Amino acid sequence: MKTIFSVDQFKEFVSSVQSENGYRNPIGFGICRVDLGQSSGNVLQANYPIVNWGENLGSAAIFISALKESGVEVDFSGTEFVSEVSIDFINSALAKFLPFIPETVGDKHRNIQVIEELRKNSDDLSSFRVAFIFEDEALKSVEATYLKLYALSQKKAPLRSLNLNGAFGVLQNVAWVGNKPYELQYLRDNEIKLKMSGNYPNIDSVDKFPRFLQHIIPEDNTRVLEASKVRMGASLAAGTTVMPGASYINFNAGTTGVSMVEGRISSSAIVGDGSDVGGGASILGVLSGTNGNPITIGENCLLGANSVCGVPLADGGIIDAGIAVLEGTKVTVSADEVAKLQSANPDFDFGGKTEFKASELATVKGVHYRQNSKTGQIIAFRSVREIKLNEDLH
Amino acid sequence: MKTIFSVDQFKEFVSSVQSENGYRNPIGFGICRVDLGQSSGNVLQANYPIVNWGENLGSAAIFISALKESGVEVDFSGTEFVSEVSIDFINSALAKFLPFIPETVGDKHRNIQVIEELRKNSDDLSSFRVAFIFEDEALKSVEATYLKLYALSQKKAPLRSLNLNGAFGVLQNVAWVGNKPYELQYLRDNEIKLKMSGNYPNIDSVDKFPRFLQHIIPEDNTRVLEASKVRMGASLAAGTTVMPGASYINFNAGTTGVSMVEGRISSSAIVGDGSDVGGGASILGVLSGTNGNPITIGENCLLGANSVCGVPLADGGIIDAGIAVLEGTKVTVSADEVAKLQSANPDFDFGGKTEFKASELATVKGVHYRQNSKTGQIIAFRSVREIKLNEDLH
Amino acid sequence: MKTIFSVDQFKEFVSSVQSENGYRNPIGFGICRVDLGQSSGNVLQANYPIVNWGENLGSAAIFISALKESGVEVDFSGTEFVSEVSIDFINSALAKFLPFIPETVGDKHRNIQVIEELRKNSDDLSSFRVAFIFEDEALKSVEATYLKLYALSQKKAPLRSLNLNGAFGVLQNVAWVGNKPYELQYLRDNEIKLKMSGNYPNIDSVDKFPRFLQHIIPEDNTRVLEASKVRMGASLAAGTTVMPGASYINFNAGTTGVSMVEGRISSSAIVGDGSDVGGGASILGVLSGTNGNPITIGENCLLGANSVCGVPLADGGIIDAGIAVLEGTKVTVSADEVAKLQSANPDFDFGGKTEFKASELATVKGVHYRQNSKTGQIIAFRSVREIKLNEDLH
Repeated sequence: MKTIFSVDQFKEFVSSVQSENGYRNPIGFGICRVDLGQSSGNVLQANYPIVNWGENLGSAAIFISALKESGVEVDFSGTEFVSEVSIDFINSALAKFLPFIPETVGDKHRNIQVIEELRKNSDDLSSFRVAFIFEDEALKSVEATYLKLYALSQKKAPLRSLNLNGAFGVLQNVAWVGNKPYELQYLRDNEIKLKMSGNYPNIDSVDKFPRFLQHIIPEDNTRVLEASKVRMGASLAAGTTVMPGASYINFNAGTTGVSMVEGRISSSAIVGDGSDVGGGASILGVLSGTNGNPITIGENCLLGANSVCGVPLADGGIIDAGIAVLEGTKVTVSADEVAKLQSANPDFDFGGKTEFKASELATVKGVHYRQNSKTGQIIAFRSVREIKLNEDLH
Repeated sequence: MKTIFSVDQFKEFVSSVQSENGYRNPIGFGICRVDLGQSSGNVLQANYPIVNWGENLGSAAIFISALKESGVEVDFSGTEFVSEVSIDFINSALAKFLPFIPETVGDKHRNIQVIEELRKNSDDLSSFRVAFIFEDEALKSVEATYLKLYALSQKKAPLRSLNLNGAFGVLQNVAWVGNKPYELQYLRDNEIKLKMSGNYPNIDSVDKFPRFLQHIIPEDNTRVLEASKVRMGASLAAGTTVMPGASYINFNAGTTGVSMVEGRISSSAIVGDGSDVGGGASILGVLSGTNGNPITIGENCLLGANSVCGVPLADGGIIDAGIAVLEGTKVTVSADEVAKLQSANPDFDFGGKTEFKASELATVKGVHYRQNSKTGQIIAFRSVREIKLNEDLH
Repeated sequence: MKTIFSVDQFKEFVSSVQSENGYRNPIGFGICRVDLGQSSGNVLQANYPIVNWGENLGSAAIFISALKESGVEVDFSGTEFVSEVSIDFINSALAKFLPFIPETVGDKHRNIQVIEELRKNSDDLSSFRVAFIFEDEALKSVEATYLKLYALSQKKAPLRSLNLNGAFGVLQNVAWVGNKPYELQYLRDNEIKLKMSGNYPNIDSVDKFPRFLQHIIPEDNTRVLEASKVRMGASLAAGTTVMPGASYINFNAGTTGVSMVEGRISSSAIVGDGSDVGGGASILGVLSGTNGNPITIGENCLLGANSVCGVPLADGGIIDAGIAVLEGTKVTVSADEVAKLQSANPDFDFGGKTEFKASELATVKGVHYRQNSKTGQIIAFRSVREIKLNEDLH
């Protein structure tokens, strides 16, 4: 087992590993603690203290060489690779990281900290795995699925940028009791014993996915008033507040700036900085009424309470409370207001029309949708109201 | 105490018990562990490992004879009967079940498994009860109320088929801390001590009913993303997904097939196979706007996001996002569309009209409700869109 | 240290304390157990077993004199004062309360019971504080903020009656794990260790405020089906039911009588006795569309499912399901219905009009808002339907 004594030696060693025949840099990797199925022994969940995404390739090389030294040959030919870890793996990795150990504290060398914690748990390593993703293809393992969900939720990969195909096939539907997943079959097999002894667990949810807050620590100015409202794999920009009424943010959806979210952001939908999703407002997802077109809400928009948004909304857009704007909604705009919108959108071709399908206005900035309360007509006009999130009182 | 040594003897014994004067087969029965009030000693909740509903009448006869042998005379004259259990009850029952004991494992003879678990808890039997329902009348005990709620939630009795009158009078309003109910008066009496010592419990809800997931294990392909969203006594068909946004399924309500539920299914409402309840959609209940008529949503229907459904919807029906269709809503249908609906509903008499109250269309299949975005008029037409639930990505 | 032996001596002593130069009676005070930040040591939460609000001024005088005898000089010049407590404080207070000790039990002398519990915890008093508010001004401490939130939630101070400015600045955003607040920085600093050891906490929410049920015991006929739905600082009148679908009641908002709440009551909004907030209905708050005017819903009103209420609603008002009534909504009323509304509101001047902005009708009783389903027009008429909450079946 090779030991490294200086930073220069370390760099040389990493280079030599990386230049080995067939070696590939992973796009993401990490060491995780997994929860195993009570009945099946399957991996149900992966908890990553650190996710590396397009970064720390030196640590990746050390992990791969440590696997090799501990007798595990990494298969670079697949799109992902997962392995158990052994005490030899730990010792091998630490022998390479030696020059950095004295300064491994706080925010520094967090991958090494993970190895050090792993060593503390070396009495039983059956719950630990090291996982690598080499290509962003359909998912094949629980560990790789969680790596990608972490990458999205920790904002290391942008929303919609990752291939999540296969996630629903890979993840098992389980009963979540706090952070711990239980297999439903285990509960069935033990229902009599558990209920008669008063030890039946208190189940928070039954789902394939955990909740965002089970894995992710948000920024100091970010609030999630109820954990069930944000699924793992969602992304919350700093300054986002998610209220507990009718809100929900699905995986691969979220905010990219300060936002008050009191409604639903369906999978694949993205809400821009300074935009407010009113109480009960619904942004439709690719699976629910948008013909597969993911919806982006621009900056400084407002979705009124109980509105429904089935089209993209460009910056400064407003949908009034209680109305639905869907792809096929016919929207009437007065000639005056077309002119105002034209001046705010000099490059857009309104084609001389005053009636539009809402989908035609998807890229027009500053559109305010309203239902005329005297005629029932859906109209649009140039939004004038500044949309300002009150930062103090929610 | 009589002991049974063969299956034939067992059958003979059961027959003799059942033919005793005054004996009645129960429609439902079971043994439960109860939670007792900290202040009052009242039964607050009943946890059934097994609920028998119109089945296992032999086990019922054994339980009843075992009560008798242990000195408890079952009163068959009432609609329900509940008793504490004793070591004599356990021994008497096991003496009758003897021929089955060797094969009592896994899914076999689960009522005997319950007795065996009871014996393991025989040091303190104060928390156990055996309960029988002889007639489906108004409820009188907590134990019988839970028997019926279990029968509904485990799909042993169809929704709306049971008399639940009296449930709200029988069940006590309690603070739920995980699976454990606390009496509010107990909390008041001990508030100072609990708060000063840092032991005040973390209360999840205050309600008469527990949550579905506190008692029921759903099928493997069923998901409930937040436990508070489904009340005990609801029924979820296999393949149902309940999202955590604005959804809620009350007791004596639910789904009868694969369904994506992101809205509210009020008490007494039923949603058919392949139907989708969109985000924030509301199906009104008998207590909220339907004049006491329970709403059934047929198969392959779609309630759009934030829609309100105050009338039954026959198969293939659609209510567009954001609109309310109530009993008195006036719906305009073009002559062409009446013709199309007629051909899909050959037996329905449209009476030559093109304007209907929504309640008149309750049994018409394939009705698509929409608000004309140019005139504000509520219109209906023949739905063409296939409603398909995406099975992979929610 | 002075000891008091009779009730007369006690009264005399209290008078002497109160007449000291500079003494001020507090408007609110209490002793609390606080939760301290794992990293910062800051006070994160204050748990009050008893909140005194405009009452028990004798106990206040004893607490203040006991502080003095224990070496802490209360500063009466500020708007609030918070101090740690010592064993001398406890002994001094008990020496004054001596004549009442024999009858200190149950509902009697609860402030003395708090001192007695404090004595039981005298091994470590670092988590206890005594707090006084002398003037209802902007908040400066966590302890005073909680005093005011308790006063609102325990109905000792009416909604909207207290100055809550500064609360968002004083309260720290924390991760709530059951009743316990964790600092986000602590979680970050210990993420690797906690996740690798399987001890990462199960976070219920991240917010500055706790939930109502973490601190408040509701009346026996009050139900909150999901704790996240009511924020600390809200007020629920006896007989209120909060359903778990799309509901939410923010701080400084709530009900003043029997009410079924299935929708959102935003901060500053108040709902009157006998009024029903339908599933998904939204009552806008001062920060979301009402131009700073707090909304009051009168008695016996009904907000239909998924309706939006952006104006005050006087007694007997109804907003139909699915529609939005905002300040600027133009409402058409037939001459006949104006006459009916006039007879129900003899003092209101309708000005001979049949078209109104909804805000003009804010004080008119018995207004029923509806969208004409043939024309899309928002109309209003005299509500005739009695709004009755079913007391038995929710």
